[in-house]
Amino acid sequence: MSVTQVAAYAAPAPKAPLERTTVPRRAVGEHDVLIGIKYAGICHSDIHQVRDGWGEGIYPMVPGHEIAGLVTEVGAGVTRFAVGDRVGVGCFVDSCRECAYCLRGQEQHCVKGMTGTYNALDKNGEPTYGGYSTHLVVDENYAVRIPDGLALDVAAPLLCAGITLYSPLRHWGAGPGTKVAIVGLGGLGHIGVKIAHALGAEVTVLSQTLRKKEDALRLGASHFHATSDEATFDELAGSFDLILSTVSAPLGLDAYLALLKVDGALVNVGAPEEPVALNLFSVIGGRKTLAGSMIGGIAETQEMLDFCAEHRLGSEIELIGADRINEAYERVRAGDVRYRFVIDASTI
Amino acid sequence: MSVTQVAAYAAPAPKAPLERTTVPRRAVGEHDVLIGIKYAGICHSDIHQVRDGWGEGIYPMVPGHEIAGLVTEVGAGVTRFAVGDRVGVGCFVDSCRECAYCLRGQEQHCVKGMTGTYNALDKNGEPTYGGYSTHLVVDENYAVRIPDGLALDVAAPLLCAGITLYSPLRHWGAGPGTKVAIVGLGGLGHIGVKIAHALGAEVTVLSQTLRKKEDALRLGASHFHATSDEATFDELAGSFDLILSTVSAPLGLDAYLALLKVDGALVNVGAPEEPVALNLFSVIGGRKTLAGSMIGGIAETQEMLDFCAEHRLGSEIELIGADRINEAYERVRAGDVRYRFVIDASTI
Repeated sequence: MSVTQVAAYAAPAPKAPLERTTVPRRAVGEHDVLIGIKYAGICHSDIHQVRDGWGEGIYPMVPGHEIAGLVTEVGAGVTRFAVGDRVGVGCFVDSCRECAYCLRGQEQHCVKGMTGTYNALDKNGEPTYGGYSTHLVVDENYAVRIPDGLALDVAAPLLCAGITLYSPLRHWGAGPGTKVAIVGLGGLGHIGVKIAHALGAEVTVLSQTLRKKEDALRLGASHFHATSDEATFDELAGSFDLILSTVSAPLGLDAYLALLKVDGALVNVGAPEEPVALNLFSVIGGRKTLAGSMIGGIAETQEMLDFCAEHRLGSEIELIGADRINEAYERVRAGDVRYRFVIDASTI
Repeated sequence: MSVTQVAAYAAPAPKAPLERTTVPRRAVGEHDVLIGIKYAGICHSDIHQVRDGWGEGIYPMVPGHEIAGLVTEVGAGVTRFAVGDRVGVGCFVDSCRECAYCLRGQEQHCVKGMTGTYNALDKNGEPTYGGYSTHLVVDENYAVRIPDGLALDVAAPLLCAGITLYSPLRHWGAGPGTKVAIVGLGGLGHIGVKIAHALGAEVTVLSQTLRKKEDALRLGASHFHATSDEATFDELAGSFDLILSTVSAPLGLDAYLALLKVDGALVNVGAPEEPVALNLFSVIGGRKTLAGSMIGGIAETQEMLDFCAEHRLGSEIELIGADRINEAYERVRAGDVRYRFVIDASTI
């Protein structure tokens, strides 16, 4: 395939509804694979970026960095994939490949900056377009294999939401004998519950209300508490080894830090755009850690997919046709999804 | 010795100047040692507590938790010390001895609360009195040995300032190949520079002005930068594995977090009493840690003293008579001490 136009859903301008269009995909290079996209998850950050919440966006913008599909063509130099392979692409499609972080498999921390799957410029200065599309061309080193045990539709959200939770759970040692709290039961949180449970941790969900309690217990949580109930914070003081916050609303950090054991960690994978207040004595007392985490590298993303396949663990999804993307965005913003919208790319 | 009155310097009421008085010391119990105090360091937190900065104080208050002296009497059941031994006492003189933290040697995190060396109530409900005094009775399990290689006067400040820096430097892996920044070159910071250097780390001091640059280099720092110079933050972006903040003035946390490498940690051992602002994206980007640390357990305090003796490493002190304590307090508050006042207890 030479440079060609493929069907996609794009926002033509900041805050504009997404509409069907075509975007160019580069010719399949020596080390590239052409992916026939089957499914693309809708991540909350897609909505942020379409709405230009994080600064300068590139338009038209084709969102989508939770991509699952099949390899339909490979470049002459491709060694890792063959036509027909089940593959995924996550939040980035390139990096410098030379810096200390790239060399150790932490491409997400590339000192020159990873190349985002969309809303970025590639090495040739061309805009990247994401997964709300029928096809994608990507260097084979930035694709991962989706094991047979995982259906492509429930695997798609793992490419961002899955690795976003898996990486900190592993880094901060969630496992047998540890108590892990997940704050917020949405697209990120519900996968966090599943992965933490599969890792062997005792999982508690902290959510604003008790509305999602049954879901949480079904997904693998052992406990569920409403954070709107002040008693929750008294009852759970000093309880957790690890708290993962998936929410982007401002959190009362001091109150959550008080729920940690000595040497415990409160790790943020969601965050508000505004500064939050923190009393540093909240971390001094019990040598506590307030940290953050952002997706993961390619190798760890593959490890996560293998882990999820082994544990038959995918996202809970609501599959939609592409004509419902704008409606889905409104529902995500209203918190009305259990727990991830996935676009059926055959409808694009 | 039965219960007896010993000479001490005490603040009779909040914010009042310290004056000479006498306070009771309990009879030497089966597991107690009586210590003839030789030196007591003046810690900034003494001044905070005398001034009632941290809430309800107990008066009269005899400050002092950087205590060095000689054992002059031992209880019948004492096994760890003999008369004549060189000993130190730090920030606490008891804990529950039963909780998970006490059992693992983290008495400072005792779930029932450690018993402070002063401004606290002991198990019998009696107030504790600190080291600005001629004698102290303490359970042998809450005293540590000061090795022969360390002079008692320069060892005294190690009992609080030394362990406050040593513990996080060790916990966060300061050593050969790591770059450590110490924020603030005062009573805490100057010992941090010495210990970090002795551990083999490459040490940078970040201070408001260049005023103390020569001192810092003499103490073991390789680099010194003024934080009042905006260029410092551009130049040092992404440089450090570990930043230890010893200052109690509000720090621009986001600016300091930007100085860390991926996976780096900003650890606070000093802190303002008011909340500070933090943009959580400052920790999310490079999986960074914002943490705190508070002194250390008895075993680690002993390890620290042994390390300091091995490296001939003590505090830089200005030795004063007890009649100059109030003057010294004013000078500490003005930042006019290089780097720790130590009271000669023979003048009490």
